[in-house]
Amino acid sequence: MARVVVDVMLKPEILDPQGQAVQRALPRLGFEGISDVRQGKRFELEVDGPVDDAVLARIHDLAESFLANTVIEDFTVRVDEVAEAAK
Amino acid sequence: MARVVVDVMLKPEILDPQGQAVQRALPRLGFEGISDVRQGKRFELEVDGPVDDAVLARIHDLAESFLANTVIEDFTVRVDEVAEAAK
Repeated sequence: MARVVVDVMLKPEILDPQGQAVQRALPRLGFEGISDVRQGKRFELEVDGPVDDAVLARIHDLAESFLANTVIEDFTVRVDEVAEAAK
Repeated sequence: MARVVVDVMLKPEILDPQGQAVQRALPRLGFEGISDVRQGKRFELEVDGPVDDAVLARIHDLAESFLANTVIEDFTVRVDEVAEAAK
């Protein structure tokens, strides 16, 4: 068992109203010094068996076709080092 | 400018219907071998100035009080190494 993390974020040129709402609320809540906030999605996939390049390539396809809308979102696929190190 | 990432995920004991919906759809879409999917939130905060322990502690407070619902969610705060390395 290994954990693969897919992070999906809006592309930089796409407006992020959720992130903006958080960022605007921060000074009111007493948190200064944060100039921008972007909010996205994080998927944790538990993969049966070892994670090799072929599995990562398949998860890349999965993320591209299914988890992210690549017209407006970027995504990254990576093996979770924290989960790996805890083994 | 530095980027700090706050990942917010439902606690393991909390049901995650969004993640389950993704996991159940995968075999139908031709992706086998993924036994569990959890979906959470990722916040990218752009911090003015250097990120030291005091700033990270404040962001930890912010995440705890505002970004995560700690009754049902866990969160992690970390400096984004990719953004750091790209400097």
